[in-house]
Amino acid sequence: MRRAVVLAFGCLAGWGCSPVAETPAEEAGFEVLPAALVERAAALRDEALESSRAYDFLHRLTVEVGPRFAGSPGDARAVAWAKARLEELGFANVRTEPVTVPHWERGMAAARILAPYPQPLVVVALGGSVGTPAGGIEAEVVEAADVEALEALGREAVEGKIAFLSGTMARARDGSHYGPAVHKRVYGPSRSATLGAVAVVIRSVGTSNDRVAHTGGLRYSDDAPRIPAAALSNPDADLLSAQLASGEPVRLHLELGCRDLGEATSANVIGEVAGSEAPEEIVLLAAHLDSWDLGTGAMDDGIGCAVITEAARQIAALPQPPRRTIRVLLSANEEFGLSGGRAYAERHADELADHVAAIESDFGIGRAWALRSGVDEAHMPVVRDLERLLLPLGITYQGNQAFGGADIGPLRPARVPFFDIPQDATDYFDYHHNANDTFDKIDAAALSQTVAAYATFAYVAANWEGNFGRGPEPETP
Amino acid sequence: MRRAVVLAFGCLAGWGCSPVAETPAEEAGFEVLPAALVERAAALRDEALESSRAYDFLHRLTVEVGPRFAGSPGDARAVAWAKARLEELGFANVRTEPVTVPHWERGMAAARILAPYPQPLVVVALGGSVGTPAGGIEAEVVEAADVEALEALGREAVEGKIAFLSGTMARARDGSHYGPAVHKRVYGPSRSATLGAVAVVIRSVGTSNDRVAHTGGLRYSDDAPRIPAAALSNPDADLLSAQLASGEPVRLHLELGCRDLGEATSANVIGEVAGSEAPEEIVLLAAHLDSWDLGTGAMDDGIGCAVITEAARQIAALPQPPRRTIRVLLSANEEFGLSGGRAYAERHADELADHVAAIESDFGIGRAWALRSGVDEAHMPVVRDLERLLLPLGITYQGNQAFGGADIGPLRPARVPFFDIPQDATDYFDYHHNANDTFDKIDAAALSQTVAAYATFAYVAANWEGNFGRGPEPETP
Repeated sequence: MRRAVVLAFGCLAGWGCSPVAETPAEEAGFEVLPAALVERAAALRDEALESSRAYDFLHRLTVEVGPRFAGSPGDARAVAWAKARLEELGFANVRTEPVTVPHWERGMAAARILAPYPQPLVVVALGGSVGTPAGGIEAEVVEAADVEALEALGREAVEGKIAFLSGTMARARDGSHYGPAVHKRVYGPSRSATLGAVAVVIRSVGTSNDRVAHTGGLRYSDDAPRIPAAALSNPDADLLSAQLASGEPVRLHLELGCRDLGEATSANVIGEVAGSEAPEEIVLLAAHLDSWDLGTGAMDDGIGCAVITEAARQIAALPQPPRRTIRVLLSANEEFGLSGGRAYAERHADELADHVAAIESDFGIGRAWALRSGVDEAHMPVVRDLERLLLPLGITYQGNQAFGGADIGPLRPARVPFFDIPQDATDYFDYHHNANDTFDKIDAAALSQTVAAYATFAYVAANWEGNFGRGPEPETP
Repeated sequence: MRRAVVLAFGCLAGWGCSPVAETPAEEAGFEVLPAALVERAAALRDEALESSRAYDFLHRLTVEVGPRFAGSPGDARAVAWAKARLEELGFANVRTEPVTVPHWERGMAAARILAPYPQPLVVVALGGSVGTPAGGIEAEVVEAADVEALEALGREAVEGKIAFLSGTMARARDGSHYGPAVHKRVYGPSRSATLGAVAVVIRSVGTSNDRVAHTGGLRYSDDAPRIPAAALSNPDADLLSAQLASGEPVRLHLELGCRDLGEATSANVIGEVAGSEAPEEIVLLAAHLDSWDLGTGAMDDGIGCAVITEAARQIAALPQPPRRTIRVLLSANEEFGLSGGRAYAERHADELADHVAAIESDFGIGRAWALRSGVDEAHMPVVRDLERLLLPLGITYQGNQAFGGADIGPLRPARVPFFDIPQDATDYFDYHHNANDTFDKIDAAALSQTVAAYATFAYVAANWEGNFGRGPEPETP
């Protein structure tokens, strides 16, 4: 035994302390996990809290690569960098798997109010937007909170104008306001175009009051004209709304230099900790290597890459290899079309029945706070045991409806059991998809705590003799 | 008597409460101010706390004018706007006094690391910088914390390179780290050029970790080549330092489109509350109307304009006019050469002996927290009485060495008594001189509290029968 089992009532760095209990797993309330496994998982968890290796990995990624948008030179550098790191860290079967990605380039962006009160505005193009003609476009602005409110105004109010969708996004630990807020970004351009709008500007999807605007993908419909689409920073959206509130007609000039460059080749980067007893059975840890182009992608999703790589490395460093294979997937182009996740599901279709669990790290930047599972109800006892192991990290169980995440989403039809261990997202949307997504905001202690959670999860999933059954039947579309 | 005197132990909105003392001024500890004056000043103070007019004034300035850099179209709009507002608010003798200002235009700015790890950087030109040749310049980077450390490296280490001055600035309520930090911005360009540097980039003078860089004026020496000079945002300075720490040579590309456009005409905007008994005696309230071009100048110095205008307006709205004249000076071009303050001192030289007090509002954005005086020691009793009136606002006396401020600085040789009522500057340098200087960060309650302080000061200075003597003899240069 390497150290005493530290259970829910144990003592962890940075947390309240009570006497350490030296108890067999069953007496400590564990239902199915054997005492030896619980002890080793708890030791791994506690040691992970003391490590700053994930922090160092993430620092290097942001300094040596930085922005790595799909198809860009940074993307290619990221793939080479990640492959070299996985090799350097001693992973097995390190390889890149080519992925075809769309290639879009942002180019310049400029906006200014021409009347009634001329002022420049901070603006960025939405991902995938068409450019304006050179020299830009100029039109009167019509404001509505969201797409539905714009449609209620009707074509007469919108035709020939720039639609301004000004709804705000609220702050929450679980980031749950992002989904509703992002609706205007994804669908606003085409639905505004259907009403005759010549362009659309939205209030940034995000909670920051900095003069940095939030990008992210849009989705053009086939049956609407493709109009230029951009986001204003929140203070700039305030300013535009205030000028509109004057009652005077507000005229805006918008110029975007976006270009669609067709396709490019990127790659998923994969490394493994080989299983000793059931190497064909796979516990998949996923994060995406690509980032938007505005920041250095420290948070989205550099932190996820650091978390899963370091969690797996810590298990690889143990004296005994895991029973099953732990596979690290650093996927290509999540941000601009989920290319990597889809390519992985296709390429590895034959193995998916042997994927015993999958988890993704791509949400939030604070401490990990929740465990969600997506397993057959018959397998809840082991999930409850996992919860007991994670409780000392401040993580509580939040139900058997794991979301999974964008990269592992394509594994859902194969009923791979999903788990979520999201981080606190209270501040995440101050930085997400904007230029402020940089390393200086990373909380080293929260990062170590998150690594501890993922390592604990992966250790149990890869070493427990049982499994989680299969995930839920996918809903019929 | 309009209401009970609320003294230091009184009850104010937003502050701790204790029973109201109805006490004559002398019994409450006042040394020279008569009870009636104390009562009226306290009533004015308390009413000011309830008003949101300064907030509304500031909102309009940022929405209807926004950036107003000396010589720009926004500057001209600001002068017209301010004159119209002072007239609308009922000030007397509203006028503009022409001021010649230097005219510099920022143009584009771009920087990127070329090697060892290519990445774009967020950069802005320092005010007054020359531009680079079109297409930019490219050179290796040499880093030093400050000018002195660069000079210690010597010409051999610097010649032909881009000097990177990377010293940081600490956060403080009194903003006292700004002065030392700004040294590298003001003197770094010419002293780097003397060592043979081809350009200089500095870590932003400021405390923000946003990707917005801090501008501000530089001072070229006549005996050094004029080299391009720019500031990196703090996260970008971190990145450049981290790449330099790799030990590899770091090459930077820098392009600045700055242009010196000669001179332009701006104006000081002046309005008065005419004195009833000694109208020739003047209490001067100053702030600067110009702003840097990156934000909307909500804080620097829109808030100062709002504070002094509203403080004077509240006195003008009282049933009795003040004994002395209260003059509001919204000065031209403080940021890029103190043109307005100098022009005022010249144009009003004959009146300066009758300036009984001057105060400027141009520091901090939180609650006013300090009172400093700059008076003859014989006049300390009335200063102590002022302190008693300001104490319920949370303002304490900080000594008889008032700084005065940039705009009223040129009045120092005429020994005009200065006062300071600075605001809390803990967060100020997150926004100061950068794009984040916008209205959304304004704390309405802190603004009302600051107006209350300035109104109280101005009321006492304009109505007390005594005066403050003259300010200290200026030090011989």
